[in-house]
Amino acid sequence: MTVLPYQDDVKNNERANYFNTAALDVSVAFPQATPTSIFPPCSKNINHHYILDIIDDLLTPEEQAIRLRVRGCMEKDVTPIMAEYWEKAEFQFQIIPKSGALRIGYGCPGLSITANAFTTAEIARVDGSCSTFFLVHSSLAMLTISLCGSEAQKQKYLPSLAEFKTVACWGLTEPDYGSDASALRATATKVEGGWVLEGQKRWIGNSTFADVLIIFARNTTTNQINGFIVKKNAPGLTATKIENKIGLRIVQNGDILLNKVFVPDEERLPGVNSFQDTNKVLAVSRVMVAWQPIGLCMGVYDMCHRYLKERKQFEAPFAAFQINQEKLVRMLGNVQAMVLIGWRICKLYEAGKMTPGHVSMGKSWITLRARETVALGRELLGGNGILSDFLVAKAFGDLEPIYTFEGTYDINALVTGREVTGIASFRPAASTQ
Amino acid sequence: MTVLPYQDDVKNNERANYFNTAALDVSVAFPQATPTSIFPPCSKNINHHYILDIIDDLLTPEEQAIRLRVRGCMEKDVTPIMAEYWEKAEFQFQIIPKSGALRIGYGCPGLSITANAFTTAEIARVDGSCSTFFLVHSSLAMLTISLCGSEAQKQKYLPSLAEFKTVACWGLTEPDYGSDASALRATATKVEGGWVLEGQKRWIGNSTFADVLIIFARNTTTNQINGFIVKKNAPGLTATKIENKIGLRIVQNGDILLNKVFVPDEERLPGVNSFQDTNKVLAVSRVMVAWQPIGLCMGVYDMCHRYLKERKQFEAPFAAFQINQEKLVRMLGNVQAMVLIGWRICKLYEAGKMTPGHVSMGKSWITLRARETVALGRELLGGNGILSDFLVAKAFGDLEPIYTFEGTYDINALVTGREVTGIASFRPAASTQ
Amino acid sequence: MTVLPYQDDVKNNERANYFNTAALDVSVAFPQATPTSIFPPCSKNINHHYILDIIDDLLTPEEQAIRLRVRGCMEKDVTPIMAEYWEKAEFQFQIIPKSGALRIGYGCPGLSITANAFTTAEIARVDGSCSTFFLVHSSLAMLTISLCGSEAQKQKYLPSLAEFKTVACWGLTEPDYGSDASALRATATKVEGGWVLEGQKRWIGNSTFADVLIIFARNTTTNQINGFIVKKNAPGLTATKIENKIGLRIVQNGDILLNKVFVPDEERLPGVNSFQDTNKVLAVSRVMVAWQPIGLCMGVYDMCHRYLKERKQFEAPFAAFQINQEKLVRMLGNVQAMVLIGWRICKLYEAGKMTPGHVSMGKSWITLRARETVALGRELLGGNGILSDFLVAKAFGDLEPIYTFEGTYDINALVTGREVTGIASFRPAASTQ
Amino acid sequence: MTVLPYQDDVKNNERANYFNTAALDVSVAFPQATPTSIFPPCSKNINHHYILDIIDDLLTPEEQAIRLRVRGCMEKDVTPIMAEYWEKAEFQFQIIPKSGALRIGYGCPGLSITANAFTTAEIARVDGSCSTFFLVHSSLAMLTISLCGSEAQKQKYLPSLAEFKTVACWGLTEPDYGSDASALRATATKVEGGWVLEGQKRWIGNSTFADVLIIFARNTTTNQINGFIVKKNAPGLTATKIENKIGLRIVQNGDILLNKVFVPDEERLPGVNSFQDTNKVLAVSRVMVAWQPIGLCMGVYDMCHRYLKERKQFEAPFAAFQINQEKLVRMLGNVQAMVLIGWRICKLYEAGKMTPGHVSMGKSWITLRARETVALGRELLGGNGILSDFLVAKAFGDLEPIYTFEGTYDINALVTGREVTGIASFRPAASTQ
Repeated sequence: MTVLPYQDDVKNNERANYFNTAALDVSVAFPQATPTSIFPPCSKNINHHYILDIIDDLLTPEEQAIRLRVRGCMEKDVTPIMAEYWEKAEFQFQIIPKSGALRIGYGCPGLSITANAFTTAEIARVDGSCSTFFLVHSSLAMLTISLCGSEAQKQKYLPSLAEFKTVACWGLTEPDYGSDASALRATATKVEGGWVLEGQKRWIGNSTFADVLIIFARNTTTNQINGFIVKKNAPGLTATKIENKIGLRIVQNGDILLNKVFVPDEERLPGVNSFQDTNKVLAVSRVMVAWQPIGLCMGVYDMCHRYLKERKQFEAPFAAFQINQEKLVRMLGNVQAMVLIGWRICKLYEAGKMTPGHVSMGKSWITLRARETVALGRELLGGNGILSDFLVAKAFGDLEPIYTFEGTYDINALVTGREVTGIASFRPAASTQ
Repeated sequence: MTVLPYQDDVKNNERANYFNTAALDVSVAFPQATPTSIFPPCSKNINHHYILDIIDDLLTPEEQAIRLRVRGCMEKDVTPIMAEYWEKAEFQFQIIPKSGALRIGYGCPGLSITANAFTTAEIARVDGSCSTFFLVHSSLAMLTISLCGSEAQKQKYLPSLAEFKTVACWGLTEPDYGSDASALRATATKVEGGWVLEGQKRWIGNSTFADVLIIFARNTTTNQINGFIVKKNAPGLTATKIENKIGLRIVQNGDILLNKVFVPDEERLPGVNSFQDTNKVLAVSRVMVAWQPIGLCMGVYDMCHRYLKERKQFEAPFAAFQINQEKLVRMLGNVQAMVLIGWRICKLYEAGKMTPGHVSMGKSWITLRARETVALGRELLGGNGILSDFLVAKAFGDLEPIYTFEGTYDINALVTGREVTGIASFRPAASTQ
Repeated sequence: MTVLPYQDDVKNNERANYFNTAALDVSVAFPQATPTSIFPPCSKNINHHYILDIIDDLLTPEEQAIRLRVRGCMEKDVTPIMAEYWEKAEFQFQIIPKSGALRIGYGCPGLSITANAFTTAEIARVDGSCSTFFLVHSSLAMLTISLCGSEAQKQKYLPSLAEFKTVACWGLTEPDYGSDASALRATATKVEGGWVLEGQKRWIGNSTFADVLIIFARNTTTNQINGFIVKKNAPGLTATKIENKIGLRIVQNGDILLNKVFVPDEERLPGVNSFQDTNKVLAVSRVMVAWQPIGLCMGVYDMCHRYLKERKQFEAPFAAFQINQEKLVRMLGNVQAMVLIGWRICKLYEAGKMTPGHVSMGKSWITLRARETVALGRELLGGNGILSDFLVAKAFGDLEPIYTFEGTYDINALVTGREVTGIASFRPAASTQ
Repeated sequence: MTVLPYQDDVKNNERANYFNTAALDVSVAFPQATPTSIFPPCSKNINHHYILDIIDDLLTPEEQAIRLRVRGCMEKDVTPIMAEYWEKAEFQFQIIPKSGALRIGYGCPGLSITANAFTTAEIARVDGSCSTFFLVHSSLAMLTISLCGSEAQKQKYLPSLAEFKTVACWGLTEPDYGSDASALRATATKVEGGWVLEGQKRWIGNSTFADVLIIFARNTTTNQINGFIVKKNAPGLTATKIENKIGLRIVQNGDILLNKVFVPDEERLPGVNSFQDTNKVLAVSRVMVAWQPIGLCMGVYDMCHRYLKERKQFEAPFAAFQINQEKLVRMLGNVQAMVLIGWRICKLYEAGKMTPGHVSMGKSWITLRARETVALGRELLGGNGILSDFLVAKAFGDLEPIYTFEGTYDINALVTGREVTGIASFRPAASTQ
């Protein structure tokens, strides 16, 4: 028998004619389970309550109403497009007007911190990037203007921001100062009629397209931290996208360069006279950040619950396997506990009793459990667990930046540790030599 | 140089003159940290609230009062003797009259399930064995008489049991039937004027000294499970102690042998006609069991908190080490979450909305987190973490039987799994062949 | 004071002039630590040995030489481009000729399984996608031809494949049959002069551009699994890319549709007459898959080691913090243990003593520890831990498909469980009803 | 119907006639599974090798022979009595002559460090207390005399110790100095013809009955650590038992009081002139300590393996449950990895390449995995997992002191961390203020 030379047989410098052909729709490629373009319903228990949400009877009717409104909008409007934008790492600008219509921003009437928290969770249940976009705009930037701004600044900026006609970002972190943010190095130098900002910021969410940038810098006279409202296109300002992220890919985090950026006197925030003044903002935003993983995990649980009933192997639904049920139940316990911790922190805040240790413990503990929860979910979905079409992979990635931002797990644990022991342990001995 | 033969030098067949000398008091042997004979105070946060108990404002004044009463009694009366009895694996009979004086048993006036739960935790905070003794007597045995007994049985037994003039136990588990208790094999055969019980029970807490034994057996006519009240010293009955335990050593678990034990008709519980009838008892007792690890972990946290501030190494208090603070904070987060889950289950029960899955999830999830918590505490105490004098070692051991009894972690997870998926996965395929 | 309407002040329907401006180079945006475009060196211990590799003295000089050759090539040629291709989810075709030049494919002279394993690790240390590309081509497709092909098939295909003039893939998994692959449904029907293949495959790595596709299908006459060599562009064949992956994004996994694809008789693999015949291939490929996470974790450790020494907070290098050192050391212990387990499996294979349980245990245990290891590394890098520029984020994503493919963690654990207990537990009871 | 007053019916101030009756033999009380008085056989794989020991072919015939000898002795002589002595927390003096007969002590001919390590594991496989007794005597006390003693001291003490005619202990740790041992405070003051020792030691294993006590104290002239040989019954010396331990209960740890204890000049160890001189002893003993958890886990695995096949629930052996198989396989992977890490450390030691970081990493990593392994085993045995009759409960307790002694997990991790990063992180910043 004559063997043909293989190189003649297959013209291997040619691409296959199907190379770069459009991908199969995932519902054709994998018909056995429904992707998240049809979002999984809230899993109900035998009493017809949303099983993850064991405290719905403790919400006011208004709080219930707003979260159902947000849930409906997210499931309808964001679900169909999120996998695509996440893959492209681009922002879905079409959600901005929809966000305005929801009337859920900071300062919208009737919004308790509890309502805000559940709203954050509902957004994050469908997409963590959306909830981060919203949180930066509302619970960091708007809140800073509201708590530290002049009356004139409030009147000028807040109405437009509340309607999402303009978008804001919030710039504190620098390349060399993350966990140790209070040591930041950007400077604000007093000049005739205003200030000149100089320095670099990093990781600033929304900054590549924000209309308004809240920027913190060190006053070269007092050596204290001050805050400023900077507008897009200010001469000397650039904010360029940080690429190659594995989580919250829809969020546009920027590297900001401040090259002699002039800010008029009236745009300095009168209420920020030291780093401590940022703490009342961070207290609230940290509560909201703590609710993001709760929402992510709710979505992951609901997805896994549906998947286990649809997907079969060895002629049985995944839900029939001991080893899968135990994982699902461990997830359920984690999510219920996270909800309760998050809810309790809101109630302590509303009662004026929330300490920094409460919220730092909440943020760190919730993200720790969330990390375990999404990893279990990732595993339950097998191969489809690595595709953002089935939600869990996306949440698995999205949790990582959340685990780290607004205080890493370790920093928040040590903040709480300082409060409960009375001893600060941030600095190693080596640094004091 | 002449070397003396060593055998001449030391008469080594003699014991040292200090062999079997009494041990040093631990406060002399280790002066740097206080042992639990002086029980650690409830750790307060900066708002002067008990930090582990983030829901105290949700308790009624009565609920608060009773737990403080129980806490006081435990800290005062049980603390000084528990390490000794635990070591000896003997029951501390002197606590029985004190228990009666507390008026906290099932059916005592004004005791909501929430109050009962917090009471259970307060007892377990100091000693898990005490709380188990109490739980078996009250939440299993008395509750069974109350829910399944005749009016005459209630009048006959409950008052004395409520005052701890008599003590009860509850016998379901058998050597061959633990997780699969409904398959139990002990038999009850109808005879003239009563029933003859035959079989073996295992692990039955309090049984070596109980005055009243609730025994479940299979009716040889109906093949269903029935329940009986058996009295100590009944002919044919023996209950002997299970030795060599590593946890709950003060609890006297017995092996019960039923060798043609006659029970008169009036001591059959009319309300137990099938295994399902035990479920309404187990629903309550499982809530209480879930609160035991909460209490254990509260004690462990409070102990570690004090220890870290007292104990020094490298010229610094243990509390100043990053690696210790992170562990303490992780424990704190776990305990707060456990309290909230436990509290919520009580509220669902009180509202008539608690499902079997709720309580099974609660028991399994809480014990999982408790196991992590006590292991962290054990590690924080270093060498002293293996001595029951410093509480944590005892709690570390006590948690293990609790992790397993009233449904193992796995069985409770699968009970919840069945409820949330609609599919039972207890039996492996092999068993159905 | 008159407040200007904000909408007049900022023309907010305009994008910022810096929107879509090119990102800052990461070394400018974050000067404090070196990105992986300059790959971190192998961390040495105080004896100048690569600390992760505690068995280098047990390798032959040839084995040492080949791994250094591969390491050099990977660090030089792949490092600069991998973040970009990973982000784009495109295959870096330029590595194919370089792969050929390395002479490391299956059947290359002097390549023991140990050498192959260390080579796999060296590739994965820099990029998990490259190692997967290579593994599919060599340890699955070429190995199948070699073990199950006719002499003519070997002569026709292997030389070109060994030189990477042609590329191969391997198609077993189907949408409905992953863990339960032996139940696959694609069919092969005998016709005049050949066979007609019909069905669907999923997840097939390299398939969108492979010149040669090994396809498994069920013989419609015997009902047994047979194997076939299919060539690209065969009429009726398409293989389209699976999009939206969070790991191994450079690997092109395809959905293959077989719509009456004709395969001539001489392209049927005579050595595949049942599913069992795939096992001798899978035994080897599973060893190689087990070495992928070892390599990934080596890269992650080396990266973290460098990063902790470069990155500062609170005026001290990250390496000076207790809480960071403990994580780094836990990673080190895991990697050393993974190397030893992997090495031992190779030695057992070479001695003819490796059982299916050995390699399944190895794959599942190694991936379990790897998952813990990359999560620790992800955390150590803080914010930069979510950017593929710093390697760890990429490895964190890449591990997830590896955790799941070639037998999920659970399936491999149960394969080992069957071997050590003698009882198969794959099927739940429900499935046998 | 008349209800009899219950107090009349049951004379409840009487104990039951079966109270304090001897416990049922565990094989009667629980017939379904074999207790460890019949020790479980070494689990074999399908190639008839001991599955936990994947490197037996790398041992020399002498090394194999000695471990089989030790295994035989332990299974035969120690197995029947260990649960009883563990419960009583008393030392089983009858094993001392048997230990002498085994000829396995330090300095016995033909004993490589590898042989010593496997021997340690074989002893610990059956009983961790025995292995600790042996380790303190041989790898701490005898080794110190051998490495730091004069020729005369060696001739005087070692022969008798090698034959176990006399027993030794080793006193370094003090109440206030555990992890920070080099700061110890006991003093040695030069006087005419000798030294006067003053101070307190804690946790010293074997000390309540040892004939020879190696004691470290600070030379009041040089301020350096020196070492001394003290004999039992020396005036001013007492060593009393530390009670209430939850692990290694058979080991007699003592509190030593040194009240002006005179030691003649010839009993000062000439080779101990600073704390650093203890390091060559600790290097070896730490290797042996690392092998204790390996042995413990081997015993636990073998016990669980047998138990899962014997114990039934739901009409199937425990081994048939997915959820149990996964645990067993995770244990198996851990044990195999621990063996390999331990073996490799021995080989590095024998080659003169072992660094302090190697052995500290080995000790900390192995104990971490061991802790996970025994906890899994504890769970697999359900209720019987809390009884020392079934071995696992005992090992679960025994691991805790091992996790902590000879350097806690954290201290060993930080020792390794210092070696791999070049930065010591033991001291918190607070301690340097």
